[in-house]
Amino acid sequence: MSVREAVAARVEVPRGLAGVVVTETRVGDVRGAEGFYHYRQYSAVDLAESRGFEDVWHLLVHGDLPDAERGAAFAAETAALRRLPEPVRAALPVIAAAGGRSGPLAGMRTALSLLGAAKGFRPVYDIDADRRRRDALEAAAAVPTLLTALHRLGKGLEPVEPREDLSYAANYLYMLTGSEPDADRVRAIEQYLISTIDHGFNASTFTARVIASTGADVAACLAGAVAALSGPLHGGAPSRALDTLDAIGTPERIDAWVREHVRAGERMMGFGHAVYRTEDPRSRMLREVAQRFGGPRVDFAVEVERRVEAILAELKPGRELHTNVEFYAGVVMELCGLPREMFTPTFAAARVVGWSANILEQAEDSKIIRPVARYVGERAPVAVPKTA
Amino acid sequence: MSVREAVAARVEVPRGLAGVVVTETRVGDVRGAEGFYHYRQYSAVDLAESRGFEDVWHLLVHGDLPDAERGAAFAAETAALRRLPEPVRAALPVIAAAGGRSGPLAGMRTALSLLGAAKGFRPVYDIDADRRRRDALEAAAAVPTLLTALHRLGKGLEPVEPREDLSYAANYLYMLTGSEPDADRVRAIEQYLISTIDHGFNASTFTARVIASTGADVAACLAGAVAALSGPLHGGAPSRALDTLDAIGTPERIDAWVREHVRAGERMMGFGHAVYRTEDPRSRMLREVAQRFGGPRVDFAVEVERRVEAILAELKPGRELHTNVEFYAGVVMELCGLPREMFTPTFAAARVVGWSANILEQAEDSKIIRPVARYVGERAPVAVPKTA
Repeated sequence: MSVREAVAARVEVPRGLAGVVVTETRVGDVRGAEGFYHYRQYSAVDLAESRGFEDVWHLLVHGDLPDAERGAAFAAETAALRRLPEPVRAALPVIAAAGGRSGPLAGMRTALSLLGAAKGFRPVYDIDADRRRRDALEAAAAVPTLLTALHRLGKGLEPVEPREDLSYAANYLYMLTGSEPDADRVRAIEQYLISTIDHGFNASTFTARVIASTGADVAACLAGAVAALSGPLHGGAPSRALDTLDAIGTPERIDAWVREHVRAGERMMGFGHAVYRTEDPRSRMLREVAQRFGGPRVDFAVEVERRVEAILAELKPGRELHTNVEFYAGVVMELCGLPREMFTPTFAAARVVGWSANILEQAEDSKIIRPVARYVGERAPVAVPKTA
Repeated sequence: MSVREAVAARVEVPRGLAGVVVTETRVGDVRGAEGFYHYRQYSAVDLAESRGFEDVWHLLVHGDLPDAERGAAFAAETAALRRLPEPVRAALPVIAAAGGRSGPLAGMRTALSLLGAAKGFRPVYDIDADRRRRDALEAAAAVPTLLTALHRLGKGLEPVEPREDLSYAANYLYMLTGSEPDADRVRAIEQYLISTIDHGFNASTFTARVIASTGADVAACLAGAVAALSGPLHGGAPSRALDTLDAIGTPERIDAWVREHVRAGERMMGFGHAVYRTEDPRSRMLREVAQRFGGPRVDFAVEVERRVEAILAELKPGRELHTNVEFYAGVVMELCGLPREMFTPTFAAARVVGWSANILEQAEDSKIIRPVARYVGERAPVAVPKTA
């Protein structure tokens, strides 16, 4: 069928393209009914429990898990890409000053867009697979540097230069605070980052692939993905769940607070997911990560989870509402010393790897993604009225 | 049907979503079989022939053509929005220095992203329709200022400040060259700009709407649209058609050159369109605009068009290959004194109005656009191998 014929045929589908299969993928999948998701052929949770971030990054971008030697080479290769090109460094103070008003993702969007231009990224259809992969690594490796520099500049602090001798996760915390983080926190944030790399065909991933399908460069695709991530319907805002913990305040207030909010028809932030019918596997893993630290905050979170699930089961029987990734992600990031305004940027620092893998896969195709709309306005043409 | 059920149902559609109806629209449509396209209920060509750019902008963004008084008020309102906020002005030299290596759209993408942050744009779902429209006007009104400043800075020239007393089209040419353009050239470029505002559900428009569907701010949507426009498959690169004219060189070489290229299976830049079966209505109008100027260049273009169509009809009978918008758009922009590297940015300076209208329409919906992908990789889960 030619494009003309397909466009003429008009295929009717559910609103928002829900359930519409837009492409095939080997990056990964979410099996909602089973409470399971995977990157390539491996359980994402198993990867987070047994591997480092760089190994999983290699899996996503190269397609396989590296052995120790190749893993070390990949870690060294990406660590060397953390420093920003001079034009981007020079622009960061201005971007930071402007960006705070629309939130930290606006700054990331601008800085990634500038980074691609400064590095001279070219359209993905004009370069070979090795060059595309290199561009994707250069962009993703720079994201923690960009994010932490923008954050510090926004606070009136000098950016901290990246260190090549630290892992991706350790260097991220180091650049944020300026001091070397302890191993427990590094591992906790690394597990969060691994669990967040990819999660099905969400709106930011889809945006990256639509842009890649035109053949635009990797930075163009990533800037578009960040743009989509900044939308309130996208999800990935773990600070909202923490806000709920704060609002409840103490264990004895849980029942009354939750009943009041559920009866008022308000959504419980951190609970419920569009795809999972079961417990969110990310939530289960991150609860365990949090419980390694222990303490009253973690105990309180676990108690809130337990009580909210019980009350929701009572008030909304059959709905299967469990904690989603936001709930314990917020708790873990707080335990690792991340300020709340860095929660979504930290999500983005992991998701950039998933976007990369999707962009690289889309670039192997050479078919533009271009649906149609149905015109439902007034019948055209009507004669253009003359101006008086 | 719930989201879970729709996602579980899996709807199979043509590759690249060709012909898939993703939304309803009142912005406009392309009727390919008739060689006709429209904005709202008016023929786009009729609008280009009888109205000014600001009136058509009003039509797209407000939904109706203004009378003389409201048209003047809208022109004054948008003219007052041309100046850039100080942080964006300050960043432009860095953006220009970095942006040239990935082409001028990379600079536009970065500058629009920064502009939205500098103006504190908020998610479209968090603000009312008036505020959204205002954001869209602020962004679009600044685009010519951004583009011309980036272009001049790239050439080592000082940017030219916008003038409020000139029309959108006149001010664009003025800021590019620093001198007031003559009325014929202003009207010619204005007609080109009007004819380019919107054209169905192309990939950049779709990208803008996907991002808007997450609720992201107007600048996020526009930056994503520019990102998609920069892809080689998107189209909208009128300089390629001029390159063809240059390669042919003289009238007596037309036949041999065209036959050689068609036989070699090469695409003729400026000919053929995915949707139109007939002559592209934009091409017809822009030919007339070019012929108002006349001269050997225009005569040559008309002769190339005549000969190429005849040869294509002979060598590819039944294919109905005519000039598309790129062909005479390039000729008209050259006549107006625009350098080739500004052809696609000039396209963007018009299309930003179409993107705006689509973003505003999408924001009235509150349904995220989120399709699915089919996983076709190795069966998961496979046990994660231990590192050595």
